[in-house]
Amino acid sequence: MKELKENVEIILPLNGLEEKLKQVQKEKRKLVIKLGFDPTAPDLHLGHAVVLKKLKQFQDLGHQIVVVVGSFTARIGDPTGKNKSRKPLSAEVVKQNAETYIAQLSKVLKISQTKIVFNSEWLDNLPLSDIIQLLSRVTVAQLMQRNDFNKRFNENTPIAMHELTYPILQGYDSVMIECDIEMGGTDQLFNCTMGRQLQDAYGISPQIVMCMPILRGLDGKEKMSKSLNNTIGLTDKPNEMFGKTMSIPDSLITEYIDLTTDFTDTEKEKLKESMDSGVNPMNIKKIIAKNIISQYHSVSEAEKAEQFFVNQFQQQNFENKSFVLVDIKQFMNSSFSLLGLCCKLKSDLSRTSIRRLILQGGVLVNGEKVLNPLEEIILEGSIKIKIGKRSFYELK
Amino acid sequence: MKELKENVEIILPLNGLEEKLKQVQKEKRKLVIKLGFDPTAPDLHLGHAVVLKKLKQFQDLGHQIVVVVGSFTARIGDPTGKNKSRKPLSAEVVKQNAETYIAQLSKVLKISQTKIVFNSEWLDNLPLSDIIQLLSRVTVAQLMQRNDFNKRFNENTPIAMHELTYPILQGYDSVMIECDIEMGGTDQLFNCTMGRQLQDAYGISPQIVMCMPILRGLDGKEKMSKSLNNTIGLTDKPNEMFGKTMSIPDSLITEYIDLTTDFTDTEKEKLKESMDSGVNPMNIKKIIAKNIISQYHSVSEAEKAEQFFVNQFQQQNFENKSFVLVDIKQFMNSSFSLLGLCCKLKSDLSRTSIRRLILQGGVLVNGEKVLNPLEEIILEGSIKIKIGKRSFYELK
Repeated sequence: MKELKENVEIILPLNGLEEKLKQVQKEKRKLVIKLGFDPTAPDLHLGHAVVLKKLKQFQDLGHQIVVVVGSFTARIGDPTGKNKSRKPLSAEVVKQNAETYIAQLSKVLKISQTKIVFNSEWLDNLPLSDIIQLLSRVTVAQLMQRNDFNKRFNENTPIAMHELTYPILQGYDSVMIECDIEMGGTDQLFNCTMGRQLQDAYGISPQIVMCMPILRGLDGKEKMSKSLNNTIGLTDKPNEMFGKTMSIPDSLITEYIDLTTDFTDTEKEKLKESMDSGVNPMNIKKIIAKNIISQYHSVSEAEKAEQFFVNQFQQQNFENKSFVLVDIKQFMNSSFSLLGLCCKLKSDLSRTSIRRLILQGGVLVNGEKVLNPLEEIILEGSIKIKIGKRSFYELK
Repeated sequence: MKELKENVEIILPLNGLEEKLKQVQKEKRKLVIKLGFDPTAPDLHLGHAVVLKKLKQFQDLGHQIVVVVGSFTARIGDPTGKNKSRKPLSAEVVKQNAETYIAQLSKVLKISQTKIVFNSEWLDNLPLSDIIQLLSRVTVAQLMQRNDFNKRFNENTPIAMHELTYPILQGYDSVMIECDIEMGGTDQLFNCTMGRQLQDAYGISPQIVMCMPILRGLDGKEKMSKSLNNTIGLTDKPNEMFGKTMSIPDSLITEYIDLTTDFTDTEKEKLKESMDSGVNPMNIKKIIAKNIISQYHSVSEAEKAEQFFVNQFQQQNFENKSFVLVDIKQFMNSSFSLLGLCCKLKSDLSRTSIRRLILQGGVLVNGEKVLNPLEEIILEGSIKIKIGKRSFYELK
């Protein structure tokens, strides 16, 4: 039970999982666990994997995962055309996207044991009378509680009526497949709760809702999302995965240890402690990157990717270059920010230009991009600094 | 044109009727005019007739009246069961109600020239994808402008989602029949405007909306409505029509002259003037009552009904009764309200009891109920007063 709840951010109701497990044991069956999938964006990334890995835990215990492909909604899209992410897709494209998605699912789930259903099966031919029945179960005020609707209503930003029906249709999917659990990111809490309510209205024992935390993307701020171009894709090549992982800001390391690796609890704790005790974040990121690659490719691919990264970015990049040798001793009396040091070294550039260069990733210290102009540089041993495209300094 | 606009309370847009007439002349066709009918309450009354008589004017000019029977909506009703007036009806009952309704329509319209359609024809099999298309044309904020929705939303009284769809479906009817005008009471303004908007969204020249005033019922306060039991039905028997018309409060006389009679403008003005110059309101009500009966029955039936009324309520009611003869002179020095006079006559009852008796219609002056305790009684000639069931006084 502890493992099943690990990393889960919301369980609704709180004791729901225990109750459901008791219920299905009594009924001598397994849990039916729903995952909704929007076939407009079939490329899965580590953010999706947070949910998928939780599903995998249930699958390994023999429970039934049902993936509901939102084929109906994808084919309709947003008829007003205002919402670009909701443009209608042809049946053919939806099918292709679903196939891509299922192939990617296999990176985490056992597809042979996963049930895949399309919601157009029951929505395409739903008569208006049944739709009216369905809509009668939900009030306007309830829908207006959803954050985005609430915000838009209060700001007088138009909400078209069909938009309000989408969460209801998603909830109806739960009625049709009679699931025990709906799983999603925390951003799906409202929609999943709608499923509970509708199942209850249709005389089905309401599903419990399990929400996993939202993984932030490479930028360290926004949620990982294809449209923000800040993802590590499940089908990214090993070298790409490695490089991207190395590029996350240090502030994300703990989150990535928890949500993207498959280390044991003890291993995770140990890694976090090592970071607290001053191990170079870059080294911890390397460990995370290798672990991610071993999950989606293999251990040997992970090793190769590390080697490639080191060669490419840490050494090769600096080899065959003529470094200006600088005596480190002259700086040792003061402490230096990266910006301060670069200004000393490259006095032909203004402080402003150098700051911009750093922020744009144009300055490497020992082969690694440092983006914070105020990062303190420890002056010891040999330090190689690249400023812009052509200036290489070695302090020692 | 003046006649077509007579009594009309709202035309939207203001110059719409002129424009539409020009348009259909150019296209060498007649206007298509829609009247929606809710087959849950098939009994037509004088309130409905206000609209029907306007339609009749257009029909007499050769235009096409299309009655849309809301058979779909009636069969669905209110699935929540909260709204008693919206309980679902069987297909059989809807059919019967529609037949009753059409029979009653013939009291005003020429049925052979009226087109009757059922909206279940297009709504029963409307696929969800088309419904989503339809809903996308309307925003939540627009629907919340409708008075009743607005009020309920602000008071946190639940509004179920299907209720919001009903005005949209009514609007879709206008799309399907491609009408030029939708006619209704002023309470239908919002719903009719929805039709305009949807026709425009579906590439049809938007209908104009013509709203007739709402006739008040016998109570003089609420709109005439079967559920309030304050109606004069188009199929009421002549005697019933006469009695009911006589019972309207004097404050409604002008409204009834305008909206329920078929007098010419000049005749109407003359009647109103006669009232201003002190003619007994009872006599004016008799004229209105006879006119109404001549419209829905015949002139001879109207005469008979008047005779019956006079016999029954003004004379016979008081005949065969032993009146206590009271000398009128003793009261002539002061002016008396009905209440004051009754208290004098029937000193064994408390003032409070007598007031209640009057308010409940238990006091008749010259055969007519007087409901206002403070109504001044002119003491001249012979006055017959009945107080309660058994006390009869004749003052002279």
